[in-house]
Amino acid sequence: MDEAVLLTGAAGRVAEAILDSLADAYTWRLLDRDPPEREYAHEFVIADITDAEALRDAMAGIDTVIHLAGDPRSDASWDSVLVNNIDGTETVLDAATDAEVEKFVLASSNHAVSGYETDERVPTIYRSHDAYRLDGTELPRPGNFYGVSKAAGELLARYYHDVHGLSVACLRLGNLTEERPPADYERGQAMWLSYRDCAHLFDRCLRAEYDYEIVYGISDNDSKYYSIERARDVLGYDPQDNSAYFDR
Amino acid sequence: MDEAVLLTGAAGRVAEAILDSLADAYTWRLLDRDPPEREYAHEFVIADITDAEALRDAMAGIDTVIHLAGDPRSDASWDSVLVNNIDGTETVLDAATDAEVEKFVLASSNHAVSGYETDERVPTIYRSHDAYRLDGTELPRPGNFYGVSKAAGELLARYYHDVHGLSVACLRLGNLTEERPPADYERGQAMWLSYRDCAHLFDRCLRAEYDYEIVYGISDNDSKYYSIERARDVLGYDPQDNSAYFDR
Repeated sequence: MDEAVLLTGAAGRVAEAILDSLADAYTWRLLDRDPPEREYAHEFVIADITDAEALRDAMAGIDTVIHLAGDPRSDASWDSVLVNNIDGTETVLDAATDAEVEKFVLASSNHAVSGYETDERVPTIYRSHDAYRLDGTELPRPGNFYGVSKAAGELLARYYHDVHGLSVACLRLGNLTEERPPADYERGQAMWLSYRDCAHLFDRCLRAEYDYEIVYGISDNDSKYYSIERARDVLGYDPQDNSAYFDR
Repeated sequence: MDEAVLLTGAAGRVAEAILDSLADAYTWRLLDRDPPEREYAHEFVIADITDAEALRDAMAGIDTVIHLAGDPRSDASWDSVLVNNIDGTETVLDAATDAEVEKFVLASSNHAVSGYETDERVPTIYRSHDAYRLDGTELPRPGNFYGVSKAAGELLARYYHDVHGLSVACLRLGNLTEERPPADYERGQAMWLSYRDCAHLFDRCLRAEYDYEIVYGISDNDSKYYSIERARDVLGYDPQDNSAYFDR
Protein backbone atom coordinates (compact mmCIF):
# COMPACT_ATOMS: atom_id res chain seq x y z
CA MET A 1 0.00 0.00 0.00
CA ASP A 2 1.29 3.43 -0.83
CA GLU A 3 -0.36 5.28 2.01
CA ALA A 4 2.26 7.35 3.82
CA VAL A 5 1.94 7.35 7.61
CA LEU A 6 3.89 9.49 10.05
CA LEU A 7 4.15 7.77 13.42
CA THR A 8 5.31 9.88 16.35
CA GLY A 9 6.67 8.25 19.50
CA ALA A 10 8.19 5.51 17.40
CA ALA A 11 10.32 4.11 20.21
CA GLY A 12 7.37 3.37 22.48
CA ARG A 13 5.46 0.17 23.11
CA VAL A 14 2.35 1.10 21.14
CA ALA A 15 4.56 1.73 18.12
CA GLU A 16 6.19 -1.64 18.67
CA ALA A 17 2.82 -3.39 18.64
CA ILE A 18 1.80 -1.53 15.46
CA LEU A 19 5.02 -2.14 13.56
CA ASP A 20 5.21 -5.82 14.59
CA SER A 21 2.09 -6.42 12.48
CA LEU A 22 1.89 -3.59 9.98
CA ALA A 23 5.47 -2.87 8.94
CA ASP A 24 4.82 -3.91 5.36
CA ALA A 25 1.26 -2.60 5.02
CA TYR A 26 2.09 1.11 4.83
CA THR A 27 4.92 3.44 3.96
CA TRP A 28 6.12 4.53 7.37
CA ARG A 29 7.96 7.61 8.50
CA LEU A 30 8.94 7.11 12.12
CA LEU A 31 9.63 10.00 14.46
CA ASP A 32 11.07 10.03 17.93
CA ARG A 33 12.92 12.49 20.12
CA ASP A 34 15.95 10.24 20.59
CA PRO A 35 18.07 8.35 18.06
CA PRO A 36 16.77 4.81 17.48
CA GLU A 37 18.17 2.07 19.69
CA ARG A 38 17.61 -0.56 17.02
CA GLU A 39 17.51 -0.81 13.24
CA TYR A 40 14.28 0.12 11.46
CA ALA A 41 13.47 -0.72 7.86
CA HIS A 42 11.73 2.67 7.60
CA GLU A 43 12.65 6.32 7.39
CA PHE A 44 13.41 7.64 10.89
CA VAL A 45 13.24 11.32 11.85
CA ILE A 46 14.80 12.50 15.11
CA ALA A 47 12.78 15.46 16.37
CA ASP A 48 10.96 16.75 19.41
CA ILE A 49 7.24 17.21 18.79
CA THR A 50 7.38 20.68 20.32
CA ASP A 51 9.68 21.73 17.43
CA ALA A 52 7.22 23.21 14.93
CA GLU A 53 9.76 23.58 12.14
CA ALA A 54 10.92 19.96 12.38
CA LEU A 55 7.30 18.83 12.40
CA ARG A 56 6.58 20.85 9.28
CA ASP A 57 9.37 19.03 7.46
CA ALA A 58 8.24 15.65 8.80
CA MET A 59 4.73 16.13 7.36
CA ALA A 60 5.83 16.37 3.72
CA GLY A 61 3.95 13.81 1.63
CA ILE A 62 2.13 12.32 4.62
CA ASP A 63 -1.49 11.10 4.34
CA THR A 64 -2.13 10.05 7.93
CA VAL A 65 -0.56 10.80 11.29
CA ILE A 66 -0.53 8.35 14.17
CA HIS A 67 0.37 10.50 17.15
CA LEU A 68 1.75 8.49 20.06
CA ALA A 69 4.54 10.77 21.31
CA GLY A 70 4.39 12.37 24.72
CA ASP A 71 5.31 11.71 28.31
CA PRO A 72 3.79 8.23 28.83
CA ARG A 73 4.02 8.10 32.63
CA SER A 74 0.70 8.07 34.46
CA ASP A 75 2.41 9.94 37.31
CA ALA A 76 4.03 12.54 35.03
CA SER A 77 4.20 16.06 36.44
CA TRP A 78 1.93 18.85 35.29
CA ASP A 79 4.90 20.76 33.90
CA SER A 80 5.92 17.80 31.76
CA VAL A 81 2.50 16.98 30.34
CA LEU A 82 1.74 20.66 29.71
CA VAL A 83 4.73 20.85 27.37
CA ASN A 84 5.09 17.35 25.98
CA ASN A 85 1.49 16.17 25.78
CA ILE A 86 -0.71 19.26 25.50
CA ASP A 87 1.51 21.75 23.65
CA GLY A 88 3.20 18.90 21.77
CA THR A 89 -0.12 17.58 20.46
CA GLU A 90 -1.15 21.06 19.36
CA THR A 91 2.10 21.43 17.46
CA VAL A 92 1.59 18.11 15.67
CA LEU A 93 -2.06 18.92 14.83
CA ASP A 94 -1.09 22.33 13.51
CA ALA A 95 1.66 20.92 11.31
CA ALA A 96 -0.64 18.16 10.08
CA THR A 97 -3.42 20.51 9.01
CA ASP A 98 -0.93 22.92 7.44
CA ALA A 99 0.32 20.01 5.34
CA GLU A 100 -3.26 18.97 4.46
CA VAL A 101 -2.95 15.59 6.14
CA GLU A 102 -6.31 13.81 5.89
CA LYS A 103 -6.49 11.63 8.94
CA PHE A 104 -5.19 11.80 12.49
CA VAL A 105 -5.13 8.93 14.97
CA LEU A 106 -4.51 10.12 18.51
CA ALA A 107 -3.36 7.86 21.32
CA SER A 108 -5.55 8.90 24.21
CA SER A 109 -5.73 6.90 27.40
CA ASN A 110 -7.88 5.16 29.97
CA HIS A 111 -6.48 7.74 32.40
CA ALA A 112 -8.67 10.38 30.73
CA VAL A 113 -11.61 8.71 32.50
CA SER A 114 -10.02 6.91 35.47
CA GLY A 115 -11.82 9.29 37.84
CA TYR A 116 -14.95 7.21 37.22
CA GLU A 117 -13.26 4.42 39.18
CA THR A 118 -14.56 5.72 42.49
CA ASP A 119 -14.28 3.95 45.82
CA GLU A 120 -17.94 2.94 45.49
CA ARG A 121 -17.40 1.27 42.11
CA VAL A 122 -14.01 -0.39 42.64
CA PRO A 123 -13.24 -3.29 42.44
CA THR A 124 -16.72 -4.35 41.26
CA ILE A 125 -16.39 -2.71 37.84
CA TYR A 126 -13.24 -4.74 37.16
CA ARG A 127 -15.24 -7.98 37.26
CA SER A 128 -17.21 -9.91 34.66
CA HIS A 129 -20.59 -9.89 36.37
CA ASP A 130 -20.71 -6.09 36.46
CA ALA A 131 -22.51 -4.33 33.61
CA TYR A 132 -21.06 -0.82 34.11
CA ARG A 133 -19.73 0.57 30.82
CA LEU A 134 -18.11 3.77 29.70
CA ASP A 135 -18.72 4.31 26.00
CA GLY A 136 -16.92 7.52 25.03
CA THR A 137 -19.93 9.83 25.22
CA GLU A 138 -19.31 10.58 28.91
CA LEU A 139 -17.41 13.67 29.98
CA PRO A 140 -13.72 13.01 30.65
CA ARG A 141 -12.83 12.54 34.30
CA PRO A 142 -9.05 12.29 34.54
CA GLY A 143 -7.39 10.51 37.44
CA ASN A 144 -4.03 12.25 37.09
CA PHE A 145 -2.30 15.02 35.13
CA TYR A 146 -1.43 12.55 32.40
CA GLY A 147 -5.15 11.87 31.99
CA VAL A 148 -5.86 15.62 31.95
CA SER A 149 -3.34 16.00 29.14
CA LYS A 150 -4.87 13.16 27.12
CA ALA A 151 -8.38 14.60 27.47
CA ALA A 152 -6.97 17.98 26.45
CA GLY A 153 -5.54 16.31 23.34
CA GLU A 154 -9.03 15.04 22.51
CA LEU A 155 -10.32 18.63 22.83
CA LEU A 156 -7.62 19.98 20.56
CA ALA A 157 -8.32 17.29 17.99
CA ARG A 158 -12.04 18.11 18.14
CA TYR A 159 -11.21 21.74 17.37
CA TYR A 160 -8.93 20.81 14.46
CA HIS A 161 -11.60 18.48 13.12
CA ASP A 162 -14.34 21.12 13.28
CA VAL A 163 -12.28 23.97 11.90
CA HIS A 164 -9.95 22.22 9.46
CA GLY A 165 -11.93 19.11 8.48
CA LEU A 166 -9.27 16.69 9.72
CA SER A 167 -10.62 13.15 10.26
CA VAL A 168 -9.80 12.18 13.84
CA ALA A 169 -9.93 8.97 15.84
CA CYS A 170 -9.09 9.30 19.54
CA LEU A 171 -8.24 5.90 21.01
CA ARG A 172 -8.51 5.57 24.77
CA LEU A 173 -6.04 2.75 25.04
CA GLY A 174 -6.17 0.25 27.88
CA ASN A 175 -3.35 -1.83 29.30
CA LEU A 176 -1.11 -2.99 26.47
CA THR A 177 1.02 -6.07 27.11
CA GLU A 178 2.53 -8.39 24.59
CA GLU A 179 1.75 -12.03 25.20
CA ARG A 180 -0.72 -12.23 28.03
CA PRO A 181 -2.71 -9.98 30.34
CA PRO A 182 -1.01 -8.57 33.42
CA ALA A 183 -1.08 -11.03 36.32
CA ASP A 184 -2.68 -10.19 39.66
CA TYR A 185 -4.05 -6.89 38.41
CA GLU A 186 -7.81 -6.93 37.89
CA ARG A 187 -7.96 -3.43 36.45
CA GLY A 188 -5.31 -4.27 33.88
CA GLN A 189 -7.10 -7.49 32.94
CA ALA A 190 -10.39 -5.62 32.49
CA MET A 191 -8.73 -3.15 30.09
CA TRP A 192 -6.18 -5.46 28.55
CA LEU A 193 -5.15 -4.72 24.97
CA SER A 194 -3.16 -7.45 23.25
CA TYR A 195 -0.48 -6.53 20.75
CA ARG A 196 -2.40 -8.06 17.86
CA ASP A 197 -5.66 -6.33 18.77
CA CYS A 198 -3.74 -3.07 19.13
CA ALA A 199 -2.22 -3.39 15.67
CA HIS A 200 -5.60 -4.38 14.23
CA LEU A 201 -7.28 -1.35 15.83
CA PHE A 202 -4.75 1.07 14.34
CA ASP A 203 -5.04 -0.71 11.00
CA ARG A 204 -8.81 -0.16 11.09
CA CYS A 205 -8.23 3.53 11.91
CA LEU A 206 -6.05 3.78 8.81
CA ARG A 207 -8.64 2.09 6.57
CA ALA A 208 -12.04 3.26 7.84
CA GLU A 209 -13.79 6.55 7.10
CA TYR A 210 -14.94 8.76 9.97
CA ASP A 211 -15.34 12.35 11.08
CA TYR A 212 -14.42 12.64 14.77
CA GLU A 213 -14.51 9.63 17.07
CA ILE A 214 -13.57 8.75 20.62
CA VAL A 215 -13.39 4.99 21.14
CA TYR A 216 -11.94 2.62 23.70
CA GLY A 217 -8.98 0.51 22.67
CA ILE A 218 -9.12 -2.78 24.56
CA SER A 219 -9.44 -6.45 23.73
CA ASP A 220 -12.83 -8.13 24.07
CA ASN A 221 -12.31 -8.93 27.74
CA ASP A 222 -15.16 -10.54 29.70
CA SER A 223 -14.43 -8.17 32.56
CA LYS A 224 -14.35 -4.97 30.51
CA TYR A 225 -15.99 -1.77 31.75
CA TYR A 226 -15.37 0.08 28.50
CA SER A 227 -17.72 -0.50 25.59
CA ILE A 228 -16.09 -1.46 22.30
CA GLU A 229 -19.34 -1.15 20.33
CA ARG A 230 -18.48 2.21 18.82
CA ALA A 231 -15.10 0.91 17.64
CA ARG A 232 -16.84 -2.10 16.11
CA ASP A 233 -19.53 0.00 14.39
CA VAL A 234 -17.47 2.87 13.05
CA LEU A 235 -14.04 1.36 12.56
CA GLY A 236 -14.86 -2.30 11.95
CA TYR A 237 -12.76 -3.27 14.96
CA ASP A 238 -12.99 -7.02 15.57
CA PRO A 239 -10.74 -7.98 18.48
CA GLN A 240 -9.52 -11.57 18.84
CA ASP A 241 -8.29 -11.60 22.42
CA ASN A 242 -9.92 -11.75 25.83
CA SER A 243 -8.10 -11.67 29.13
CA ALA A 244 -10.54 -14.29 30.49
CA TYR A 245 -8.88 -16.93 28.29
CA PHE A 246 -5.69 -16.76 30.33
CA ASP A 247 -4.92 -18.29 33.71
CA ARG A 248 -4.47 -15.56 36.21
CA MET B 1 -20.86 38.10 55.88
CA ASP B 2 -17.41 36.99 56.91
CA GLU B 3 -16.77 34.65 54.01
CA ALA B 4 -13.42 35.50 52.42
CA VAL B 5 -13.38 35.36 48.63
CA LEU B 6 -10.35 35.67 46.38
CA LEU B 7 -11.36 37.02 42.98
CA THR B 8 -8.79 36.73 40.18
CA GLY B 9 -9.07 38.88 37.09
CA ALA B 10 -10.44 41.73 39.18
CA ALA B 11 -10.08 44.34 36.46
CA GLY B 12 -12.32 42.52 34.00
CA ARG B 13 -15.98 42.99 33.17
CA VAL B 14 -17.26 39.90 34.97
CA ALA B 15 -15.59 41.17 38.13
CA GLU B 16 -17.23 44.54 37.58
CA ALA B 17 -20.67 42.95 37.35
CA ILE B 18 -20.02 40.92 40.52
CA LEU B 19 -18.65 43.79 42.58
CA ASP B 20 -21.38 46.20 41.46
CA SER B 21 -23.89 44.05 43.36
CA LEU B 22 -21.92 42.08 45.92
CA ALA B 23 -19.23 44.44 47.20
CA ASP B 24 -20.67 44.46 50.71
CA ALA B 25 -21.83 40.85 50.87
CA TYR B 26 -18.40 39.22 51.23
CA THR B 27 -14.88 40.00 52.34
CA TRP B 28 -13.09 40.38 49.06
CA ARG B 29 -9.45 40.00 48.13
CA LEU B 30 -9.05 41.17 44.56
CA LEU B 31 -6.18 40.02 42.35
CA ASP B 32 -5.07 41.25 38.98
CA ARG B 33 -1.88 41.28 36.97
CA ASP B 34 -1.78 45.06 36.63
CA PRO B 35 -2.13 47.82 39.22
CA PRO B 36 -5.75 48.95 39.61
CA GLU B 37 -6.94 51.80 37.42
CA ARG B 38 -9.51 52.87 39.96
CA GLU B 39 -10.02 52.83 43.72
CA TYR B 40 -11.36 49.66 45.31
CA ALA B 41 -12.73 49.41 48.84
CA HIS B 42 -11.11 45.97 49.08
CA GLU B 43 -7.69 44.46 49.46
CA PHE B 44 -5.96 44.36 46.07
CA VAL B 45 -3.10 42.00 45.20
CA ILE B 46 -1.03 42.61 42.09
CA ALA B 47 0.16 39.22 40.79
CA ASP B 48 0.26 37.09 37.69
CA ILE B 49 -1.68 33.84 38.09
CA THR B 50 1.24 31.87 36.69
CA ASP B 51 3.32 32.98 39.73
CA ALA B 52 2.84 30.05 42.13
CA GLU B 53 4.49 31.76 45.07
CA ALA B 54 2.37 34.89 44.80
CA LEU B 55 -0.74 32.72 44.53
CA ARG B 56 0.22 30.83 47.67
CA ASP B 57 0.38 34.11 49.58
CA ALA B 58 -2.89 35.31 48.08
CA MET B 59 -4.75 32.20 49.32
CA ALA B 60 -4.10 32.82 53.03
CA GLY B 61 -7.40 32.83 54.91
CA ILE B 62 -9.51 32.39 51.77
CA ASP B 63 -12.71 30.26 51.82
CA THR B 64 -13.71 30.50 48.17
CA VAL B 65 -11.95 31.39 44.92
CA ILE B 66 -13.69 32.99 41.97
CA HIS B 67 -11.27 32.48 39.12
CA LEU B 68 -11.84 34.87 36.23
CA ALA B 69 -8.26 35.71 35.22
CA GLY B 70 -6.88 34.72 31.85
CA ASP B 71 -6.63 35.94 28.32
CA PRO B 72 -10.28 36.90 27.60
CA ARG B 73 -10.01 37.27 23.83
CA SER B 74 -11.94 34.72 21.80
CA ASP B 75 -9.24 35.02 19.12
CA ALA B 76 -6.34 34.63 21.55
CA SER B 77 -3.37 32.65 20.27
CA TRP B 78 -2.62 29.13 21.37
CA ASP B 79 0.63 30.27 22.99
CA SER B 80 -1.21 32.82 25.10
CA VAL B 81 -4.05 30.57 26.29
CA LEU B 82 -1.64 27.70 26.97
CA VAL B 83 0.20 29.88 29.49
CA ASN B 84 -2.44 32.27 30.80
CA ASN B 85 -5.57 30.14 30.75
CA ILE B 86 -4.47 26.51 30.99
CA ASP B 87 -1.27 26.69 33.03
CA GLY B 88 -2.61 29.69 34.94
CA THR B 89 -5.75 27.85 36.00
CA GLU B 90 -3.70 24.88 37.14
CA THR B 91 -1.54 27.17 39.25
CA VAL B 92 -4.59 28.74 40.90
CA LEU B 93 -6.22 25.33 41.54
CA ASP B 94 -3.00 23.98 43.02
CA ALA B 95 -2.57 26.96 45.34
CA ALA B 96 -6.24 26.79 46.34
CA THR B 97 -6.14 23.13 47.32
CA ASP B 98 -2.79 23.58 49.11
CA ALA B 99 -4.48 26.30 51.18
CA GLU B 100 -7.52 24.08 51.81
CA VAL B 101 -9.91 26.42 50.05
CA GLU B 102 -13.38 24.84 50.06
CA LYS B 103 -15.04 26.12 46.95
CA PHE B 104 -13.89 27.14 43.48
CA VAL B 105 -15.98 29.01 40.92
CA LEU B 106 -14.45 28.88 37.46
CA ALA B 107 -15.37 31.25 34.66
CA SER B 108 -15.71 28.96 31.68
CA SER B 109 -17.22 30.14 28.42
CA ASN B 110 -19.74 29.57 25.68
CA HIS B 111 -16.70 29.17 23.41
CA ALA B 112 -16.04 25.78 25.02
CA VAL B 113 -19.05 24.53 23.03
CA SER B 114 -19.32 26.96 20.12
CA GLY B 115 -18.39 24.17 17.72
CA TYR B 116 -21.99 22.94 18.08
CA GLU B 117 -23.05 26.03 16.14
CA THR B 118 -22.61 24.31 12.80
CA ASP B 119 -23.63 25.71 9.44
CA GLU B 120 -26.68 23.42 9.53
CA ARG B 121 -27.88 24.79 12.87
CA VAL B 122 -27.10 28.49 12.49
CA PRO B 123 -28.95 30.86 12.66
CA THR B 124 -31.98 28.73 13.61
CA ILE B 125 -30.68 27.88 17.08
CA TYR B 126 -30.41 31.59 17.89
CA ARG B 127 -34.19 31.99 17.56
CA SER B 128 -37.06 31.55 20.01
CA HIS B 129 -39.00 28.92 18.10
CA ASP B 130 -36.07 26.51 18.10
CA ALA B 131 -35.94 23.91 20.89
CA TYR B 132 -32.25 22.93 20.58
CA ARG B 133 -30.55 23.03 23.99
CA LEU B 134 -27.08 22.34 25.30
CA ASP B 135 -27.24 21.41 28.97
CA GLY B 136 -23.66 20.85 30.13
CA THR B 137 -23.68 17.06 29.84
CA GLU B 138 -22.47 17.19 26.22
CA LEU B 139 -18.80 16.84 25.36
CA PRO B 140 -17.03 20.19 24.88
CA ARG B 141 -16.65 21.29 21.30
CA PRO B 142 -14.54 24.44 21.26
CA GLY B 143 -14.75 26.91 18.42
CA ASN B 144 -11.36 28.50 19.03
CA PHE B 145 -8.23 28.11 21.15
CA TYR B 146 -9.82 30.24 23.86
CA GLY B 147 -12.64 27.70 24.04
CA VAL B 148 -10.11 24.84 24.14
CA SER B 149 -8.44 26.52 27.10
CA LYS B 150 -11.74 26.99 28.95
CA ALA B 151 -12.72 23.35 28.42
CA ALA B 152 -9.24 22.36 29.62
CA GLY B 153 -9.87 24.42 32.77
CA GLU B 154 -13.06 22.41 33.34
CA LEU B 155 -10.98 19.21 33.05
CA LEU B 156 -8.40 20.45 35.52
CA ALA B 157 -11.12 21.47 37.96
CA ARG B 158 -12.72 18.03 37.62
CA TYR B 159 -9.39 16.47 38.54
CA TYR B 160 -8.93 18.75 41.56
CA HIS B 161 -12.47 18.01 42.67
CA ASP B 162 -12.04 14.25 42.42
CA VAL B 163 -8.62 14.09 44.01
CA HIS B 164 -8.73 16.94 46.54
CA GLY B 165 -12.45 17.23 47.29
CA LEU B 166 -12.68 20.86 46.13
CA SER B 167 -16.27 21.96 45.41
CA VAL B 168 -16.32 23.30 41.86
CA ALA B 169 -18.81 25.22 39.76
CA CYS B 170 -17.81 25.80 36.13
CA LEU B 171 -19.90 28.58 34.62
CA ARG B 172 -20.10 28.67 30.83
CA LEU B 173 -20.82 32.36 30.63
CA GLY B 174 -22.71 33.87 27.71
CA ASN B 175 -22.55 37.40 26.40
CA LEU B 176 -22.26 39.80 29.32
CA THR B 177 -23.38 43.39 28.70
CA GLU B 178 -24.45 45.94 31.25
CA GLU B 179 -27.76 47.57 30.47
CA ARG B 180 -29.26 45.81 27.51
CA PRO B 181 -28.53 42.92 25.15
CA PRO B 182 -26.20 43.49 22.22
CA ALA B 183 -28.01 45.02 19.24
CA ASP B 184 -28.13 43.34 15.84
CA TYR B 185 -26.42 40.21 17.12
CA GLU B 186 -28.77 37.23 17.40
CA ARG B 187 -26.18 34.95 18.94
CA GLY B 188 -25.40 37.48 21.63
CA GLN B 189 -29.09 38.00 22.37
CA ALA B 190 -29.65 34.25 22.69
CA MET B 191 -26.83 33.98 25.25
CA TRP B 192 -27.19 37.37 26.87
CA LEU B 193 -26.19 37.63 30.52
CA SER B 194 -27.25 40.82 32.28
CA TYR B 195 -25.04 42.31 34.97
CA ARG B 196 -27.58 41.63 37.69
CA ASP B 197 -28.15 38.03 36.63
CA CYS B 198 -24.38 37.58 36.49
CA ALA B 199 -23.92 38.86 40.04
CA HIS B 200 -26.84 36.75 41.24
CA LEU B 201 -25.38 33.62 39.62
CA PHE B 202 -22.01 34.11 41.34
CA ASP B 203 -23.80 34.87 44.61
CA ARG B 204 -25.65 31.55 44.30
CA CYS B 205 -22.33 29.79 43.63
CA LEU B 206 -21.00 31.25 46.87
CA ARG B 207 -24.05 30.19 48.88
CA ALA B 208 -25.11 26.82 47.44
CA GLU B 209 -23.62 23.41 48.18
CA TYR B 210 -22.39 21.21 45.34
CA ASP B 211 -19.71 18.75 44.29
CA TYR B 212 -18.70 19.39 40.67
CA GLU B 213 -21.02 21.23 38.30
CA ILE B 214 -20.92 22.61 34.77
CA VAL B 215 -23.76 25.07 34.16
CA TYR B 216 -24.60 27.74 31.62
CA GLY B 217 -24.53 31.34 32.75
CA ILE B 218 -27.09 33.30 30.75
CA SER B 219 -30.24 35.26 31.44
CA ASP B 220 -33.63 33.62 30.86
CA ASN B 221 -33.72 34.62 27.21
CA ASP B 222 -36.62 33.41 25.04
CA SER B 223 -34.12 32.63 22.29
CA LYS B 224 -31.65 30.67 24.44
CA TYR B 225 -30.06 27.46 23.22
CA TYR B 226 -28.40 26.73 26.55
CA SER B 227 -30.47 25.13 29.28
CA ILE B 228 -30.43 26.91 32.63
CA GLU B 229 -32.27 24.10 34.42
CA ARG B 230 -29.18 22.70 36.07
CA ALA B 231 -28.24 26.13 37.42
CA ARG B 232 -31.77 26.54 38.76
CA ASP B 233 -31.85 23.09 40.37
CA VAL B 234 -28.41 22.91 41.91
CA LEU B 235 -27.54 26.54 42.56
CA GLY B 236 -30.96 28.10 43.01
CA TYR B 237 -30.27 30.44 40.10
CA ASP B 238 -33.36 32.56 39.36
CA PRO B 239 -32.56 35.02 36.58
CA GLN B 240 -34.64 38.19 36.19
CA ASP B 241 -33.71 39.27 32.68
CA ASN B 242 -34.61 38.17 29.16
CA SER B 243 -33.24 39.65 25.98
CA ALA B 244 -36.71 39.37 24.40
CA TYR B 245 -37.93 42.25 26.61
CA PHE B 246 -35.74 44.71 24.77
CA ASP B 247 -36.26 46.36 21.42
CA ARG B 248 -33.65 45.12 19.05
